[in-house]
Parts: sequence; structure tokens; C-alpha cells
Amino acid sequence: MREVAVIGIGQTKVDEHWDKSLRELAGFAVLDAVKDAGLNQVDALYVGNMMSVSANHQAQLGAYIADWVGLRYAESFKLESACSSGAAAFRTALLAVASGAIDTAVAVGVEKMTDSPGAEITAELATAADTDWEITQGVSFVALNALIMRRYMYEYGWTKNDFAPFSINAHANGVHNPHARFRKAITEKQYLDAGMVADPINLMDASPIGDGAAALVMVPLEKIGHSSANPLIKIIGSAAATDSIAVHDRKDPLWLKAAELSSKKAYSQAGLSPQDIDLFELHDAFSIMAALSLEASGFIERGKGPRLGLEGEIRPGGKIPIATRGGLKARGHPVGATGMYQLVEVVEQLRHQAQGSQVENARIGMAQNIGGSGSNIITHILQRV
Amino acid sequence: MREVAVIGIGQTKVDEHWDKSLRELAGFAVLDAVKDAGLNQVDALYVGNMMSVSANHQAQLGAYIADWVGLRYAESFKLESACSSGAAAFRTALLAVASGAIDTAVAVGVEKMTDSPGAEITAELATAADTDWEITQGVSFVALNALIMRRYMYEYGWTKNDFAPFSINAHANGVHNPHARFRKAITEKQYLDAGMVADPINLMDASPIGDGAAALVMVPLEKIGHSSANPLIKIIGSAAATDSIAVHDRKDPLWLKAAELSSKKAYSQAGLSPQDIDLFELHDAFSIMAALSLEASGFIERGKGPRLGLEGEIRPGGKIPIATRGGLKARGHPVGATGMYQLVEVVEQLRHQAQGSQVENARIGMAQNIGGSGSNIITHILQRV
Repeated sequence: MREVAVIGIGQTKVDEHWDKSLRELAGFAVLDAVKDAGLNQVDALYVGNMMSVSANHQAQLGAYIADWVGLRYAESFKLESACSSGAAAFRTALLAVASGAIDTAVAVGVEKMTDSPGAEITAELATAADTDWEITQGVSFVALNALIMRRYMYEYGWTKNDFAPFSINAHANGVHNPHARFRKAITEKQYLDAGMVADPINLMDASPIGDGAAALVMVPLEKIGHSSANPLIKIIGSAAATDSIAVHDRKDPLWLKAAELSSKKAYSQAGLSPQDIDLFELHDAFSIMAALSLEASGFIERGKGPRLGLEGEIRPGGKIPIATRGGLKARGHPVGATGMYQLVEVVEQLRHQAQGSQVENARIGMAQNIGGSGSNIITHILQRV
Repeated sequence: MREVAVIGIGQTKVDEHWDKSLRELAGFAVLDAVKDAGLNQVDALYVGNMMSVSANHQAQLGAYIADWVGLRYAESFKLESACSSGAAAFRTALLAVASGAIDTAVAVGVEKMTDSPGAEITAELATAADTDWEITQGVSFVALNALIMRRYMYEYGWTKNDFAPFSINAHANGVHNPHARFRKAITEKQYLDAGMVADPINLMDASPIGDGAAALVMVPLEKIGHSSANPLIKIIGSAAATDSIAVHDRKDPLWLKAAELSSKKAYSQAGLSPQDIDLFELHDAFSIMAALSLEASGFIERGKGPRLGLEGEIRPGGKIPIATRGGLKARGHPVGATGMYQLVEVVEQLRHQAQGSQVENARIGMAQNIGGSGSNIITHILQRV
């Protein structure tokens, strides 16, 4: 298996992009990444996307995007695992390059959600849950996460205020990210006063949708010349795991087993443990998911996730900085693109280009992308060499 | 790159499966394949599917199917490239095993189309074309292929009758395939009398939709014991290429460039030329596509495709047998599953289990799966060792 490095990144601002088609949205991110890599051409393109067939009436985004960016004839597929489609595309690109079949690959995550009216998007997002056994009961995707959060508060004795630091930290970091949808800091009072979506999840616990795309170029380490302008970033851990789609099918709905399995495998590939991770781009689609990810990935014991926030350890200067560029909460959550934004942000940190929320001397970064309510989780560890 | 072999196959009959859910449909094919491989467990599951989010309101088929077949926690993603999603899943599984990251993988293609009413399915199938520049003009997917066929007849002087052998051969072979949707031989008169869909494509030129699933298990060659009951089948060629989605964007709409590119690459990997191929499971979604595939893959010169049919060379005893188990025309075309059916059928031929339409002494088989009107084409060559 060849070692693989990331040599280019590109991203569009998460926003309502009424003036751009789906192919332009993805295309600009790909072109930026290829330019950043100093290449003219890549061999294959892997696209992460969840809902283009329903929201944009467009299938086969592989050929669709490849052609627009000048890669007509290149190998290109779409990967889908709901909200972790982005990292699924990245992992597929990685294995293609590692296998030796492909020499230069670009992975892009893209989602254009604002084409669909509000009620339709809620129905489309619900396809990430179990349609037969959850959605037919009338529960929405937010409501499922609200049930998890309520149970967590009951089980471990936390109050709603205790989740405030997740949202406050994300928004504080998002201020410095030109690609973030919301660049406004919030206070604890604003967090508590926010409108309720599905009790106890309010607007400040829930990440916003949006249109966006982010891309990364990777090549085998052995093919990198000495002339690269950017610091060398190696992929040293990559693993994916699934769980039941339906939350009620899990013995312990408060434990992200697929996060535990994929992070353990990634740590073992990298020869590292959680203490070695300088920053962690986790999947804070809802603040409860930030707590559960920190626990299942070994950063704190079970049921103690909110403590890391309350003690200031999730901020850029803390023990385990998270959502360092705004996270899903402030950067926004264009579902199939999110995993690629996380990876691009890890690269920005490892290149020391995260002005305003830079983690000092960041050398090792981890990204973790969650599909469904924990049913498909993909973890990557990247290292600045 | 490790060499990879196919050690198990499974498939459900293509039909209207009102009594089975999407997960059962895929699940039974996976379980059959794993059992046929003599395994209890596999490490990863790759799902080929086009329209589950729109037709079945279900995303992340990876976790969805993995859990149902007893593979909860295994790595699992969905691959999509319109009608070539099945082969995309196969190629992804192949590269994962070849890379060394995964030891045993199952690829499954599944589509459950009859849940959607007729008009909706037509709209969903149209997402395989270019929504912005083709579909908004009011053209359907069949109509696009009708334009190609009409131009081909004009350009090379063929009449409608000349395409009859493609349909007659597929139906003759389908009679012997217990998994085919239609097991009825047809005559030239029946071909000519069939109702028109989009002139010159009539019902006997067009493959039927359906519900279906087909699966294959693969492992590295080095890990196969000597005890296997089935003949050893090696994957000796695998390549994918794209073209523009919109047919009008191609300099030559009568030439499947992506078929040429992917088949040439596969031949070169295998060290073979078209004369070495014992059978060719091509993508006869429409009879014109059979002609174009034979030409672009090097079996006959440009513009001469129908001649192979008229001279009887596409039948099991001919120079290049195609659609040997019924093809898309008689077996049926559950879009995201089709590529996997083709590969399963190649394995049946190489195992010499294709009773009634067996190609004598078949040793080398090729499968070619087409997404869109030629925009994403994946070619595989398998060899009985």
C-alpha cells in the first residue's frame, strides 16, 4: 500500500448560492484545489454528495463535474453515505491512489440544498434515518437527535446550559473563516434564548444547511518533488465503520460505536493515541453529537463530554481544540460536502494558515464525519511531515 | 497491488418484488454470495444504486444493508454513476482489496424501481442525462437514445430490421436464465410489430425496468485456500472512463469514447485483445447501445455493429457472444443493479454453469456497464484460471 499525501485544497464559501449551478459550485472548489496542488490535470475524481438526485434532479455527478472542470474521460464516481458522503469520497480516493491504480486523485464534496423548499429538504434529510422504522413513525431527523440529547441529560445529569460552550466555541472560530456561513460570535445568553427546534435542541444546537463544496488533491508520497510550495501533509490514518441506522436498534444509543471503531483503527494505523492529536474536526451537526464524538473517540470518559467545553479545553489553546474553523455549527453543513470541509480545514491548520483560530504548532489533525445519527462514521488522521 | 479473485456470487430474480423491502432485496443477494463463497463474514460492503433517495426515500444504503445481513460495524458505502453504479461498486471493492486495506469485500448492486409510479420513474431515470441542458428541453432518456439510433441509421444506412438480432438473441438466451424477468423467445415479426416508444426505438429495442439485486464476493488471490469448491475466477482487467453527460457535447455522438478508453485499458492490463474474449456482457439498455459497444470495444469496425447480429456471431456459438443470460433486454434493467448482474453472469459462464446458453469452454469474459447515454463506462475482464 503506497503512502499518500494531500497537496492541494479548494473550497467555496458555504452560503445560498442562487447564482451558481451544482456543477459550478463543485467545479470551482476542484479547480482551486488542482491549482493549489500546482497540477494541470488529475487522473480521477471522486464526488461526495447525498441528495443530488432528489434536490437537483441530477445523477452521476462524477461525469457531470469531471467534464465541467476539464477532466472529460477521467474515472469518476459519486459516493454516498448520507452526511458522511464527503469523507467516503476522500477514503475512496485514498484507496485508489494507495492501490497503485490511480496516480493523482481529487476528492470533492458538494451539496446544493437551497434549490429545495424548506419542507422538502426536511424530508430529504430524513432519508438519512431509517425510513421503514423511524421516519414512518413521524419523527424528523432533528427530533431523533433531540431524543438522544434528552436521554443523555437525564442519564448523566447535565443541563441545557452545559452544552453552550460547543456552540460558543464554534461561532467564535467561525468569525475568522472566510468560508463560514455565519461569522458572528454568540454569547451564552444568545445560546439560551435561541428558538426551540425540537426540545432540547434549539437553533444554537443545530447546524445550518447551505450550498457548498470543498476539494482535496492527493498523490502518492513517492511522486512528490522537492519543489512544492506547501508543507507536506501525509494521511496516516483512515478507517470507516457502520452501526444500525435506527437509533432504537442500538444497545446503547448514547455511545457512537462506529466512532470508537473507526478512531481506534485510525489511531492504530498512525501509531498514536488521543493525546497526540493537536486538533479534532468533529461532526457537530448537533451539540450533543460533539459530546458523543469526544467520548467515543477517547478524548474523555463516557458521559463527561460537556466538561471539556465547560473547562475551555475545546478552544484553540485547549487540550483538544474542535470546530477550529467554525465546525458544522458556524461554517455550515451542506451535508455531502461537510466531510471534505473538515479535511480541508485540518490541512489549513497543519499548514498554519488558520489565521485567528490557529492551533499553535499544529502537526497532527483528525477529522471525523458522521452519517445519519451515528450509522456511518469515517475517521482520518493527517500529519504535517 | 494485490491480485483479486471472485469467490462467491448471489442474485435475485429481476421482477416486481412487492413483498420485499429494499434491504431484503439486496440482503438476500449478499447472503447468497457470502454463502457461495463459503464465508461467514466479510470486512466491507460496497453498494451500487442509483435512485434510492428519490424512489425509496432511503439514503446511506451502506449501513442500511450491512446491518440487515449481519455486517453491522463493517465499512460500507454506496456508489452512484447512474446505470453503471453496479460496476462502480465492484471497481471500488476491487481497489479496496487490491490496496491491502480490506481483505474480503462484497459488492452488491440493487434497485427497487416499482415502488415509484410510472411517470415518476421516467423523471428519475432522466436524472442520468444532463438536467440543465437536455432534460429541460423536454427530451426523455429514451428519446435521447432514439435520436442516437436515428442518426446511426441515417449515417451508416441500416434499417430498423437490422437491429432485430440483438433483441432476438437476448430473449433466446433469457429463456434459460431463472433470474431473468422475461423468459420468452421472440421472432423477427414480433420485434417489428412491437409498440413504438420513441421512434425508432420500440418496446423490443428497450430494456425493461424492474426490482433486483446481484452480489459478488472478492478476496486477494494470495488468501485463497486449495479447498474451494468453485473454479477460481481472477479479475485481470478493470477500468473506468467518463464522457460528457450531454450527448450534444460530443464531437461524435455515434462513438462511445468512454467504452473505447476503458476497454483499451482493461485489454492492456490483461495483456489481451478483443479476439481473446470468449463472451461479452454488454450494456444493451437499447439495441443501438449494443451496436455502439461492440464497435467502441474493438469487436467490429465503426458503423458495422449490426452485422455481427445479422451474421449470427453474437449467439453463444458465435465469434463474440453477448447478452448470454438475456442481457438488459430479457433479464431486465434494475438500473443500479445491472452492472453487478453482468459480472455475476460472466462468473456463471466462466464456471460453466450457464445451462442452455453456455459458451463452450469459456475462459475469459468481459462485462461493460454504461451510465447515462455513454457518459460513465466501466469495463472488467475476468479469467478462469
